[in-house]
Amino acid sequence: MKSCGVVVEYNPLHNGHVYHLKKAREVSGADIIIAVMSGNFLQRGEPAIVDKWTRTQMALAAGADIVIELPVAFSAQPADHFAKGAVGLLQAMKCDAICFGSESGEGSDYQKLAQFLNQHTAAINQRFKENKNQGQTYASQMEQVLKELLPSQPIALSTPNNILGLAYAKENLLYEKPMELYALRRIGSAYHDEELIEQNFSSATAIRKKLLEKNQKAVSLEELKANMPASSLELITDNPLVSWENYWPYLKYQIEVQSLEELRSIYQVTEGIEYRLKECIQEANSFEQFISLVKNKRVSWTRLQRMCVYILLQLKKEDMVKELQKPKAVHLLGFSLLGRKYLQEIKKELTIPLIANVTKKNKKLWTLDIKAGKIYQMGQLGLIKEQDYYRQPLNFYFENTYENKA
Amino acid sequence: MKSCGVVVEYNPLHNGHVYHLKKAREVSGADIIIAVMSGNFLQRGEPAIVDKWTRTQMALAAGADIVIELPVAFSAQPADHFAKGAVGLLQAMKCDAICFGSESGEGSDYQKLAQFLNQHTAAINQRFKENKNQGQTYASQMEQVLKELLPSQPIALSTPNNILGLAYAKENLLYEKPMELYALRRIGSAYHDEELIEQNFSSATAIRKKLLEKNQKAVSLEELKANMPASSLELITDNPLVSWENYWPYLKYQIEVQSLEELRSIYQVTEGIEYRLKECIQEANSFEQFISLVKNKRVSWTRLQRMCVYILLQLKKEDMVKELQKPKAVHLLGFSLLGRKYLQEIKKELTIPLIANVTKKNKKLWTLDIKAGKIYQMGQLGLIKEQDYYRQPLNFYFENTYENKA
Repeated sequence: MKSCGVVVEYNPLHNGHVYHLKKAREVSGADIIIAVMSGNFLQRGEPAIVDKWTRTQMALAAGADIVIELPVAFSAQPADHFAKGAVGLLQAMKCDAICFGSESGEGSDYQKLAQFLNQHTAAINQRFKENKNQGQTYASQMEQVLKELLPSQPIALSTPNNILGLAYAKENLLYEKPMELYALRRIGSAYHDEELIEQNFSSATAIRKKLLEKNQKAVSLEELKANMPASSLELITDNPLVSWENYWPYLKYQIEVQSLEELRSIYQVTEGIEYRLKECIQEANSFEQFISLVKNKRVSWTRLQRMCVYILLQLKKEDMVKELQKPKAVHLLGFSLLGRKYLQEIKKELTIPLIANVTKKNKKLWTLDIKAGKIYQMGQLGLIKEQDYYRQPLNFYFENTYENKA
Repeated sequence: MKSCGVVVEYNPLHNGHVYHLKKAREVSGADIIIAVMSGNFLQRGEPAIVDKWTRTQMALAAGADIVIELPVAFSAQPADHFAKGAVGLLQAMKCDAICFGSESGEGSDYQKLAQFLNQHTAAINQRFKENKNQGQTYASQMEQVLKELLPSQPIALSTPNNILGLAYAKENLLYEKPMELYALRRIGSAYHDEELIEQNFSSATAIRKKLLEKNQKAVSLEELKANMPASSLELITDNPLVSWENYWPYLKYQIEVQSLEELRSIYQVTEGIEYRLKECIQEANSFEQFISLVKNKRVSWTRLQRMCVYILLQLKKEDMVKELQKPKAVHLLGFSLLGRKYLQEIKKELTIPLIANVTKKNKKLWTLDIKAGKIYQMGQLGLIKEQDYYRQPLNFYFENTYENKA
């Protein structure tokens, strides 16, 4: 069976994601789709609005055949580490292709650019040095360097989807049998925003805003029906929702209680930012206010949010160095009938252990994620279920609630 | 001026405490009363129902002339450390006498027993060794040993007040100029429970129960009028109340997020209890339930509560060893006109710094307590004010609200 991977967060899953899943199958000609999905803490440094199991159900209902989890060490990360985890897991799953959203360029363009970057590392670093101290972001510096070195290349590096796509392409080259690359172009203006393909977060942001409003007061979700499949909407109204504000008391408590030295031991807490954290935590009355107080031109909103995830979860520098070497296991969250067949087919070729069920025996492979799950539960005490221990992967063929859209 | 010290918690201040203050002045013949009061975390390992400033107001209104703070390192502790801090501070304040509640014995009996214990440490330890492994508490073992060695002594060591009294007496002997000891006998059965003297907590417990009930539903506080001065009742109805349950989410979060190794670094987390903490935290839905799950015959309820304070405040073994050597400063919480005169009189004789106002300059003397204050505030986010930085001591002569009962 041919397989195609997609890298997703589904926060929550909307029509754009359904389109992505359908198109991925179409353009790659794959029999099955493997979704690598961020666990409960996401790329932009946020808790997912609903837990990974609910989002797995959404994914299966929308046409994914296998859902595996991107560990927290890789998920709450900038493009390079995020891609390292995602591509590593797809490679472990013997995936033949990967299909990602992009604003410009074809799969082959990403392939070429990645190769160029790998082959000209020295020249690029040299240019970076020369262009230094101009106060630009990494992405825009890279864009400028590329304009000089490779004027013809069509990939704009100012958009998050393209940056991620390129990161997948680069990581993919490191493997003996690289996957085929498919870049799915953003749909033109004839389409609604809700139909944006995966990795365009703006629409999911709007949906989350609506959902969290609903959490507080009687807001009708009627209009969301146009934006997301019925299965997703039903799942999201049935489950406890969270945002960063649910974790704000714990974050505040932790920053107050830890010494500067302890804060410095946390991954990415560098350059003396611990002093600002300690200072601003006292004035802030909400997570949003806190980030806006700490933010300055040296550190972006997203980087700060990720830092807050690391603090909330107490991810230490030394732990993360070990964890980021490569994914240690594939955690299976769910599968369809077809997905099950594929799993049986590749089972013996797997290069890292497959965890179908976190137990006391295999927990050492999943330590940070078990912890992340425990803390995620704290967002709605007593309402969010245990996230790892003894949870079985969801079998889509046992689920009669939602129509399989594949 | 002659001064007499009392060691208090006022959680909250009731008629028994008013009686204690009045009697302390009477029996010692002192001009002023100095109250060493536990800060926001108390001897039995609990957060105080109202903050230290509110309790200071109560104390001044009820007749104390000076209120100073017992640092958290000494306050959430068994008798020996508690007494070390309290007596150390009273000595630093040049106190002439100390008056404590007891169930039996006179001041002179405590003096004699303390001297006997100091002089016969070796013999007592020997008896302890011989009597070992009988599953008794320390107090009842000590009582048995004393029955053998000093049959005539009148102090029953099975009651918390007597244990504390003896601890004060022992600590007091270590100083060049020991204070006079006054043991105030528990009032007979003709009196109501509310008139029990300080260190009998049962009545305060009943009052707290009523107050916390009131917090949740419309309970009348009318009946409390008979139990506590009007000033205390007014202060307590005007201020945010907390119990351990307010801190339960933070405690749970901290025990979940820390590794076994990190938990082991906390003061008093020993003998592998970190495993039980980790295990039980997952099942518990409240603080009370948690403690009852962890409790077994090897570790008492109170010891566990104290351990939870240390975890909540992240008080490390290494920090506490340093902190417990002796009180580093006298933190002045409030004073009356008379108290002010006394302070002027002894100012130059003080052996450790007097902090009238915690600032960036003197904060190093008050680190753990500043932290304790920050965490105490988390019990009612946004409602409990800053506890240390730039708080002025309360001057009773500016307060017109309550009648000075002294």
